[in-house]
Amino acid sequence: MDRRDLFSYIDSRKDDLIADLQSLIRQRSVSAKKQGLEQCAAVVAGIMIKAGINTRILNLPKDGKSGDQNNRAPPIVYGEVKAKKKSSRPPKTLMFYNHYDVQPEDPIELWEHDPYEGVVEGDYIYGRGSSDDKGELITRIKAVEYYLKIFGDVPCNIKFLVEGEEEIGSVHVEEYLASYHDDLACDGVIWEFGYVNEQNIPIITLGMKGLLFVELISTGPNRDAHSSLAVLIENPAWKLVRALNKLTDSSGKILITDWYKEVRDLTESEKTFLQTESFDEIRFKTEYGIHSFLNNVQGIEIQRALVSMPTCNIAGMISGYTGEGAKTIIPSTASVKIDFRLVPEMNPTVQFERLKKYLVDNGFDERSLSVRFLHGEAASRTDVNDPFVETVSESAQEVYGGAKISVSSPATGPMDTFSKNLNVPCISIGSTFIYSKMHSPNEFARTDLLLKTTKCMCGIMDRFASGYSRKENHPE
Amino acid sequence: MDRRDLFSYIDSRKDDLIADLQSLIRQRSVSAKKQGLEQCAAVVAGIMIKAGINTRILNLPKDGKSGDQNNRAPPIVYGEVKAKKKSSRPPKTLMFYNHYDVQPEDPIELWEHDPYEGVVEGDYIYGRGSSDDKGELITRIKAVEYYLKIFGDVPCNIKFLVEGEEEIGSVHVEEYLASYHDDLACDGVIWEFGYVNEQNIPIITLGMKGLLFVELISTGPNRDAHSSLAVLIENPAWKLVRALNKLTDSSGKILITDWYKEVRDLTESEKTFLQTESFDEIRFKTEYGIHSFLNNVQGIEIQRALVSMPTCNIAGMISGYTGEGAKTIIPSTASVKIDFRLVPEMNPTVQFERLKKYLVDNGFDERSLSVRFLHGEAASRTDVNDPFVETVSESAQEVYGGAKISVSSPATGPMDTFSKNLNVPCISIGSTFIYSKMHSPNEFARTDLLLKTTKCMCGIMDRFASGYSRKENHPE
Repeated sequence: MDRRDLFSYIDSRKDDLIADLQSLIRQRSVSAKKQGLEQCAAVVAGIMIKAGINTRILNLPKDGKSGDQNNRAPPIVYGEVKAKKKSSRPPKTLMFYNHYDVQPEDPIELWEHDPYEGVVEGDYIYGRGSSDDKGELITRIKAVEYYLKIFGDVPCNIKFLVEGEEEIGSVHVEEYLASYHDDLACDGVIWEFGYVNEQNIPIITLGMKGLLFVELISTGPNRDAHSSLAVLIENPAWKLVRALNKLTDSSGKILITDWYKEVRDLTESEKTFLQTESFDEIRFKTEYGIHSFLNNVQGIEIQRALVSMPTCNIAGMISGYTGEGAKTIIPSTASVKIDFRLVPEMNPTVQFERLKKYLVDNGFDERSLSVRFLHGEAASRTDVNDPFVETVSESAQEVYGGAKISVSSPATGPMDTFSKNLNVPCISIGSTFIYSKMHSPNEFARTDLLLKTTKCMCGIMDRFASGYSRKENHPE
Repeated sequence: MDRRDLFSYIDSRKDDLIADLQSLIRQRSVSAKKQGLEQCAAVVAGIMIKAGINTRILNLPKDGKSGDQNNRAPPIVYGEVKAKKKSSRPPKTLMFYNHYDVQPEDPIELWEHDPYEGVVEGDYIYGRGSSDDKGELITRIKAVEYYLKIFGDVPCNIKFLVEGEEEIGSVHVEEYLASYHDDLACDGVIWEFGYVNEQNIPIITLGMKGLLFVELISTGPNRDAHSSLAVLIENPAWKLVRALNKLTDSSGKILITDWYKEVRDLTESEKTFLQTESFDEIRFKTEYGIHSFLNNVQGIEIQRALVSMPTCNIAGMISGYTGEGAKTIIPSTASVKIDFRLVPEMNPTVQFERLKKYLVDNGFDERSLSVRFLHGEAASRTDVNDPFVETVSESAQEVYGGAKISVSSPATGPMDTFSKNLNVPCISIGSTFIYSKMHSPNEFARTDLLLKTTKCMCGIMDRFASGYSRKENHPE
């Protein structure tokens, strides 16, 4: 039996893989609304146990900062498979980090299928989480299950960490990593997702941007007032508009004092990888129905922006009457949700203080325009020269016939928390077609990519096992 | 039997008046949502018939511009009582104009009682429409009912016009006035509402501001997109913020080119009445929980602003994710509802074109920022020297022990349509306590004011009958 037999077996088990993914999709698990999280953790645990993985549900200790029932952290599903084959060297440990929570399904009316049904049409499986991240999770679980099935062993130790708050900023992951530090020791982490581009080539991503998520709340009269009084009562929506207008210019440049102070240029080797990334500009525009890019960027500038440009994005905004027809009121409040993407060396807490100070300095006092910190996460980048990069890259090339390296994803995840706490490289690779509508209506996964990624994970396990162990060579 | 007997009788019928008002409140009739309008018209008709008023339900002819079933105009309830007593001169006709539709009840969670229950607590009746305008309507109907009961006749001809779209801008009133022009001829109109101030003195209002209600819709990607793409995809919420920021400055001054071109100063006699109006600044601030007025206006400047300042007000605004927690998206659209209050000589259509041109001139092209005209209504003012003003003023002083004259309400109604189409003076007087939370949660009416206003309407009928008839003296 060799890897070719394993890959044939994986292809033969397509229906099994799809069925398990469907049962995951059918258990809705929206972390933003605290919906079905414990239930979904149980579904994940069941699928992992069925796969032959030793599985436990982890909770935070009751006396932890989030131990109270009102703000209880969703459980983490932890899994482990130890390599049985004896060797002179201690076996290396590969961790799969994934999440079972999903983004909210709204706007529900734009879905063509029930977002929690997992409808299959040809090579497509539709549903919230089909790609992000239930589809990715299933490829990791199935890789281990099928490897065990064919070889009766795994080539290296395997650990699973499946959390339930990734979509709201992995609120408690750091606490979990601290509480279960010894259980979670490993030599490398395969990140929860990875994109596959228009040419069906995976993009191996070595870093993530950071995030500062805030809410600005502008308050006006103590209730919605008749708009004829707008000559006397200041409208909180107008105040919010003026505050927002101070934050960025029309090019997207952030005007907050010292915002870019710690931002460093890309290194020379990082720049080298920028050149190798590809991006289909026309396809992207068609996909999103847009005519031009912000600031008309093109070519290498697109890569540079995705990898290294900090952003200030309005994710949501609401005030007053938004129903049908007309209602003539001065709203009582107006609020906006903003996500700032950060790059390495930007500290979310410091940036938050800069934002607050800037608003006050511009005349928006905290009594009438409050700023809430909802979430902060620093950016992270794995060194492009780490040997783990080659392990992943070779495995991807074997299955996909190619692979691209990206210095950083434009998106955010708690990679910094992992790389700092576990002191290991984290690499993102996966099955998510770049236009698979993650976070949008009609999200889908492609079964051809799910199968390829399952194979790729097996290849990574094999190659990783034959490399050196960090723990062995670099005792802490 | 004289007016004193009538007034005693009115006081004795308080429970009857409240019961009929409750049955009106209990029939929800939200025109913005096309809820229960025909049903409410039937409830109104029933109460009018019970009062001894000849009542008909008017509809627009099928071949009218709104004859199609998809956009059918709600019915108008028309009522008539002819004076039986013969006189050498043709009797004069007084019209009561009211509406049976109400504002939406949102935000529902802020109501302390069911908005459609009409809960009575002491002198207060709570419910959507309790003041605006079901409470006012009931005072007019009950004035006629009790007058007939005591005297067996009315002193002048009476007409009722009760429409169902006032809260969405009286969309079809002009068409009704044209279609039923001969039925609706009269010599003066008592407007649908009137405020009573903190000293329990009614404010007799001779005009209303106009209104231009628009919606701006900014479009971005064809679906909500992952916000990591904000480096490439322009965010429609940002575009909307920039467009809004161009419309006004922080003082509320409207920056649209030529916006104030036709605005005239108040006349000298209008200015005289400004001085006599009173306004309790401290009470007003306490009531709305605000610390200061826009631009820190005070004294006579407050009156001037209420009567004659055009406004640009954000009534509602929405974009992207507005639920709990965080969702990191670039919204697909962003929209805002704006009401502009207009003063005499400003034409809503002309102002709308100025708005559109201004946005295009400032770089917001119509493809990505569309502007929808939702409603337009011109301002109106009855001459302060019209004899009808004295008729109303004397009647108010008799019942309330005082009365104030206001040149114009800061609010809007189709007064211009009436005064132009029927060629008669329109005067606003009524029972609505100035802090009775019209358009807000916990709207209420005060029974003491409902009874006083019922009496006042009887006094107006008496005094109006003894004045000259416009139709007689000013044949058209």
